[in-house]
Amino acid sequence: MLNELITDTISAIATPVGNGGISVIRISGDNAFNIINKIFSHKNLIPNKIYHGQIIENNENIDDVIVLPFKAPNSYTGEDIIEIQCHGGIYITNKILDITLKQGSRLAKKGEFTKRAFLNHKIDLAQAEAVLDLIQAQTEKFAVISAKNLFGKLSIETNKIKKEITDLLSRIIASIDFPDDVSEPDYQFLENTIEKIINDINYILSFSKTSNVYRQGIKIVLAGKPNAGKSSLFNALLNQERAIVTDIAGTTRDVINETIDIDGIACTITDTAGIRDDNNINKAEAIGIDFSKKYLQEADIILFLYDINQGFTQEDNEIFNTIKEKPFIKIATKSDLTNKTDEDAICISLITGKNLDLLKQEIKKLVINQNLTEIEFITNKRQQECLTEAKNALINALIATQNFEIQDLISIDIKSALMFISEVSGEVITDEILNNIFDNFCIGK
Amino acid sequence: MLNELITDTISAIATPVGNGGISVIRISGDNAFNIINKIFSHKNLIPNKIYHGQIIENNENIDDVIVLPFKAPNSYTGEDIIEIQCHGGIYITNKILDITLKQGSRLAKKGEFTKRAFLNHKIDLAQAEAVLDLIQAQTEKFAVISAKNLFGKLSIETNKIKKEITDLLSRIIASIDFPDDVSEPDYQFLENTIEKIINDINYILSFSKTSNVYRQGIKIVLAGKPNAGKSSLFNALLNQERAIVTDIAGTTRDVINETIDIDGIACTITDTAGIRDDNNINKAEAIGIDFSKKYLQEADIILFLYDINQGFTQEDNEIFNTIKEKPFIKIATKSDLTNKTDEDAICISLITGKNLDLLKQEIKKLVINQNLTEIEFITNKRQQECLTEAKNALINALIATQNFEIQDLISIDIKSALMFISEVSGEVITDEILNNIFDNFCIGK
Repeated sequence: MLNELITDTISAIATPVGNGGISVIRISGDNAFNIINKIFSHKNLIPNKIYHGQIIENNENIDDVIVLPFKAPNSYTGEDIIEIQCHGGIYITNKILDITLKQGSRLAKKGEFTKRAFLNHKIDLAQAEAVLDLIQAQTEKFAVISAKNLFGKLSIETNKIKKEITDLLSRIIASIDFPDDVSEPDYQFLENTIEKIINDINYILSFSKTSNVYRQGIKIVLAGKPNAGKSSLFNALLNQERAIVTDIAGTTRDVINETIDIDGIACTITDTAGIRDDNNINKAEAIGIDFSKKYLQEADIILFLYDINQGFTQEDNEIFNTIKEKPFIKIATKSDLTNKTDEDAICISLITGKNLDLLKQEIKKLVINQNLTEIEFITNKRQQECLTEAKNALINALIATQNFEIQDLISIDIKSALMFISEVSGEVITDEILNNIFDNFCIGK
Repeated sequence: MLNELITDTISAIATPVGNGGISVIRISGDNAFNIINKIFSHKNLIPNKIYHGQIIENNENIDDVIVLPFKAPNSYTGEDIIEIQCHGGIYITNKILDITLKQGSRLAKKGEFTKRAFLNHKIDLAQAEAVLDLIQAQTEKFAVISAKNLFGKLSIETNKIKKEITDLLSRIIASIDFPDDVSEPDYQFLENTIEKIINDINYILSFSKTSNVYRQGIKIVLAGKPNAGKSSLFNALLNQERAIVTDIAGTTRDVINETIDIDGIACTITDTAGIRDDNNINKAEAIGIDFSKKYLQEADIILFLYDINQGFTQEDNEIFNTIKEKPFIKIATKSDLTNKTDEDAICISLITGKNLDLLKQEIKKLVINQNLTEIEFITNKRQQECLTEAKNALINALIATQNFEIQDLISIDIKSALMFISEVSGEVITDEILNNIFDNFCIGK
């Protein structure tokens, strides 16, 4: 990835797809200024000035736009960038994108602007990942935490750890390379230092589970036989919580999904009752259980519903047996029609609203139970893997130290730890270690 | 509307709602520069320069942004404007909007930026309406036609007509006000001139029906009893045409709607089979016909389906009787399973793909039949009403002329026509007529 050559110019619509007042088309690369020169009413644009004019194709005005020119390296990607702010609207925006493509750019790949920003050293890898998190955040809380990484929260911490490792390694290697000038560090010092670094890594990793919950959200699935009241409960839960605005409507309509924000965690509620094809209506009951099984397997929390008026039937029991290994809430529905109660269940009525608040409390409890700590460092799987690999290498180094192995051998594990920790911010290592040694060491002596 | 005072500062998210690389928050009004001063890392911004910095709240960096300052009157609204380009993403964008609101702006109403642009004479009413059309365009063709009005296509033509009316009126009124200096225009001249103007208005109005079809699109509804294969055909039509990206998923799920682009016309295909609530699955057949009726009434074109293997049943016939007053195509489905044919229907099979292309051709023919002319002027209902009122007033003037009524009387209808034609671009008239007289007339004499 680091060796990839960037030579071509890319274009893309940078704003969300949909109807709005403004859309932005972004062009990045050596050809950006040439392209805008050919299609814009103003020519020879000066960087960092705002231009108002028209996009023109075949002598026809296509749209009234604002153009922002940025010159390398003072741009998001570090390359020449032209941004075209046009009237929002899917078709006019696509039209202008097409014009930029015709004039010599190619359609950017997913995340390619940010990838170029990384390759051009405008941001590090953890920051690049934070950009993605910020954009995809499904709750305000996750957005606010992600923004911290954009401003270097995680990078600063891992760079601190990296420096600790580098300093330690420099100390060992200096004594190996220059045994006459530099004494070997003592084993107790090595042990203490390595333990300290492991603790620092562990501290970041202690937020992994919470990070993953915030990042992936929680899947809540409604289970129960037809007519148990799943869809009605689904709607009741959505109407009373702040619904998260989802992306463009997908193509899969077999299952109804909506996402709500519970204490900053994006909770996706799935109702498997939405089988739509009219050919399938008659088959619905037959395939219902199959459908449920698939979604129940992926669920984090299950809301199991049965109609208390019909009692807990054989069919209810079959469904219940498939879900009871997961965290679940048992819900007896339509309890306004009967005096029956069920001590193991929350007896609700969507007609009277009975126990609906209690149910929501219980759902919240189960959601928050998934989430153990107040989050300080948010990490993704890749970062967690790098950190874990670094930690494991340091544990090996620690064991070697405790066994008084020769320090040349110990240094191998520490080097390995350094490589893994450097991967968090996406740096290459290679010559770095040597340079660091000579920076600390006075060679002239 | 014209007398409305604009004093407050407004903010809104100007880009579509959703996840993208960039979102834009726009602030317009006297307080815009004060607000950005309080929340941005750069202070005292110079207009038309591009700034890169951070939005800050309570000493915390919220996001890395680009800020564009515009000074009145050189901005979209004609007021001071600040645009904040932040990372796309629903939550970070809303967060920054909230910060601007807290610092002294209020949430803009729908279309308020463009309304202010009109009130501040940055654009006329027909252009303002073109902005809206451009944004809401559902096909590229409609977007391209709407853009012409943004650049004044309709305004230039109506202003030309307005000038013809004003010149005529000036001529009449001059002779009334200054009978000693100016002779009365002869009736043949009046008649010819009024007829010419009526023709000019009629030319614009001749595109009304086509305009309305492009603007509103065409509603195609699938009709037929359950298991006739409606949903399968629905999916087949969508998969093979360029689907129009629709807005954020709505809340109504009783009916499945998708829109496709047929020769530049947005065609919404409705499948009433999507009744979702599991409580309703058993009732689906019972309420199916009711549902269909409602949507069939609103349909422009109906695709009527029946299963040829079952033959044309009593139930099919009942549904068919409710739709046959509308333009329709009769479709016999599942024709791969039988040798039966139906001369009045297109016999299709979604398994083998038989006659699917023929069906699509027939749908296109029916769609294009709704649409009579190659469009030159696109107008909306309001503009059509203004033009029609102007025309009617001129017809009255023409009749009065043909009856040799006194010209003072004729001038009343012409004044009325002038008022209506001026409404197209949203101008007020008042003193204008008098001014025009004195411009043409040499008062010093």
